[in-house]
Amino acid sequence: MNYCSHCGKPVTHRIPTGDNRHRYVCDHCNRIHYENPRIVAGTIPVWGDRILLCRRAIEPRRGFWTLPAGFMENSETTLEAAVRETLEEAMADVTIDGLYTVLDVPHIDQVHMFFRATLTNGHYGAGEESLEAELFGLDEIPWEELAFPTIRETLEYFVRDKAENHFPVRLGDIRRKLGQ
Amino acid sequence: MNYCSHCGKPVTHRIPTGDNRHRYVCDHCNRIHYENPRIVAGTIPVWGDRILLCRRAIEPRRGFWTLPAGFMENSETTLEAAVRETLEEAMADVTIDGLYTVLDVPHIDQVHMFFRATLTNGHYGAGEESLEAELFGLDEIPWEELAFPTIRETLEYFVRDKAENHFPVRLGDIRRKLGQ
Ligand SMILES: [Zn+2]
Ligand SMILES: [Zn+2]
Repeated sequence: MNYCSHCGKPVTHRIPTGDNRHRYVCDHCNRIHYENPRIVAGTIPVWGDRILLCRRAIEPRRGFWTLPAGFMENSETTLEAAVRETLEEAMADVTIDGLYTVLDVPHIDQVHMFFRATLTNGHYGAGEESLEAELFGLDEIPWEELAFPTIRETLEYFVRDKAENHFPVRLGDIRRKLGQ
Repeated sequence: MNYCSHCGKPVTHRIPTGDNRHRYVCDHCNRIHYENPRIVAGTIPVWGDRILLCRRAIEPRRGFWTLPAGFMENSETTLEAAVRETLEEAMADVTIDGLYTVLDVPHIDQVHMFFRATLTNGHYGAGEESLEAELFGLDEIPWEELAFPTIRETLEYFVRDKAENHFPVRLGDIRRKLGQ
């Protein structure tokens, strides 16, 4: 951030009076430009005993498999965001069965939230940001070709919880590993 | 938003190519300035059979009672944000017992997340943004003087779930009511 989005003058990066963190501050119009984590919302779309994954058509991690998910938009709920992303990326209409994972990813200022969901009619396809969409049995998940740590974490929980058919909400965080 | 925070030139508000929503777009440096919902994280701090509430010293809703909560910052987890806000607003050190409510507030572009927590040593006080902090029995909650709908919702769930001492994660949303 270089300029104030309100008045267009240059901002400075300093700790404002009464605060204890560095912020982008405009000394012309006195606005403080806060920056906050973003929510990524997605689903685990289930059809019978299989789950729907998408292969990414875009960077980062083009060619790798993911659960349908994306940035939550203003004016929608987390649940609506998850349903919308599933429609956009996997061309699949789903009903939500419940919140499932809430995974903090603090080194990239994100919180990932996945919902368990059921395909309403078994239809799916590759949305604009996907190369393909495919149903996988739980013993067919391409573990070595998953796009992101939160996808792996969510699927690992799901496979384990599926054994008992009991899906409590799972809270966790993905810390930066050395070399990543 | 009037100016591009990257290059300082005026932005326009339009639907970018390949998108389906209005965004603030800079036609000078071609950046798109996305806006996303913010997370408010807080706790239900418990000490014995009582819970800790704070009376707000700042607007909005100055003088009304709230659970300690505030905007999640970059580089922290939801849990860390909730613990930090509890320390700042109620001067109370807590250990987290679990995620409890996830409440979408789409008309103000927020998601509120409350954690069940236990005071580590029973100490508390009024932080800078609080007029006072006080422990309340579950039959003493000042229902008519609560600051926000998500505080009421979280406390209502808590009182109900406390009866069975079973606290599943509660997902919900607060829609704008007419006249609000
Ligand atoms: Zn300014
Ligand atoms: Zn620009």
